[in-house]
Amino acid sequence: MTQDPTSERVATRLFVEEDLRAGLALGLDRERAHFLRSVLRLAPGAALALFNGRDGEWLGRLDAVGKGWASLVVEAPRRPQVREPDLWLAFAPIKRARIDFVAEKASELGCSLLQPVLTRFTAVERVNVQRLAANAREAAEQCERLSVPQVREPLALDRLLGDWEALNPPGATGVGRLLVMADEGGAHDRSLPPLAEAIRAAAPRAPEGRWALLIGPEGGFAEPERELLAGLPFVVRGTLGPRLLRADTAAIAGLALLQSEVGDWR
Amino acid sequence: MTQDPTSERVATRLFVEEDLRAGLALGLDRERAHFLRSVLRLAPGAALALFNGRDGEWLGRLDAVGKGWASLVVEAPRRPQVREPDLWLAFAPIKRARIDFVAEKASELGCSLLQPVLTRFTAVERVNVQRLAANAREAAEQCERLSVPQVREPLALDRLLGDWEALNPPGATGVGRLLVMADEGGAHDRSLPPLAEAIRAAAPRAPEGRWALLIGPEGGFAEPERELLAGLPFVVRGTLGPRLLRADTAAIAGLALLQSEVGDWR
Repeated sequence: MTQDPTSERVATRLFVEEDLRAGLALGLDRERAHFLRSVLRLAPGAALALFNGRDGEWLGRLDAVGKGWASLVVEAPRRPQVREPDLWLAFAPIKRARIDFVAEKASELGCSLLQPVLTRFTAVERVNVQRLAANAREAAEQCERLSVPQVREPLALDRLLGDWEALNPPGATGVGRLLVMADEGGAHDRSLPPLAEAIRAAAPRAPEGRWALLIGPEGGFAEPERELLAGLPFVVRGTLGPRLLRADTAAIAGLALLQSEVGDWR
Repeated sequence: MTQDPTSERVATRLFVEEDLRAGLALGLDRERAHFLRSVLRLAPGAALALFNGRDGEWLGRLDAVGKGWASLVVEAPRRPQVREPDLWLAFAPIKRARIDFVAEKASELGCSLLQPVLTRFTAVERVNVQRLAANAREAAEQCERLSVPQVREPLALDRLLGDWEALNPPGATGVGRLLVMADEGGAHDRSLPPLAEAIRAAAPRAPEGRWALLIGPEGGFAEPERELLAGLPFVVRGTLGPRLLRADTAAIAGLALLQSEVGDWR
């Protein structure tokens, strides 16, 4: 500990499950040990940043490293844990490269939870939740956030909406979580408000700051699904302009508007 | 022409260079002929939508198709040309999959021009402008816009900034193009305003609606570059929140905020 732990340059950031405290020794799994040794080419003594979503960021140091194993020692706190936006992304699964991309971007954009949703026109029904979680974790490590998004098993849209109030019980203010829907029909339906405006108008209804973004499949929502969504009290609808956006673009754009209007970009 | 040309369902949209008028016969290049015949499996009589960035969208029909060739006939107008946002994206080139992705997303998000920019820390110096243009064109065809973004040859940042006023002469209001910069240093510099707020505050200075977004390389701007940018009268700086965004994420998020605040999502 020759340098200030809050400013020492670190080779990489790692998410770990363990409670973090000074002096703790940690072993890494095979894959991450390989990454430190063979990709980053770190030697014992290399500084790392560690976080677990609860205890803030800590300075750690590589103690020893071999083929397929590595051990670290936790040294000192670098940054306190901060409250992060309570923002879900509910999205219809899409093709492999694009869904990996959505998980990465949602993590960078500060989502707290990723919920794959199966809709009528969802073409991809199998979701590798573990791979999504790994992508989200790697993005969290790179973007300096202090948590990783939770990734849930896929749920049918009907189930998600039917259980919404149970999943998101009203808080002290009597309001649960608002579900923002970038309605791709908006490209043709000029009566919908711009999404940023819709979020701004709904914000007083969500004083506890619980939000979710719903992104449909490439084929859009089926008409009965859109009617169901339009009638729900917790759904906020808006448009992302006159062009037809791909699902991954709509997810990133919608999350950017949410963070900008009601999240931690303000 | 048995159906209303404005509502007939089309198999695909194609960007063409030619002036569009009823009765015009068009030949397609090898690659696109192959796409229509072998990927979409279209037969003569199939309806297509055509646009060239000037004449709106037209209904066309596949006249004949063979191995490596196809001919179309232009039938009737479907949609008039509309004025689209005058929005540039100036970005430091990044690795192959991600730069393809930026070109696709910028096109969907309505950019009028893509300008690769070489900065001090730009790791990728060679840019395949033709491939970028092809990605941007395909995205334009899919997202229903009526133009394709222009893609320029890379330019050094110093050159771009030095020639800015010449590239963007003041309009009737005495104002050229504003350059919005999502300053990745903002993750650590809490004095910068949120980007949406910075855009809103600058909007009265750009009544003719000419905007550009500047995205730096993964390594960020060098300190002299940031100082130069901060001192220029046409540069608008803001932050995209507390997380360090990848260049491709920052590009999409920044374009979404621009379209939402001052573009055609309003």
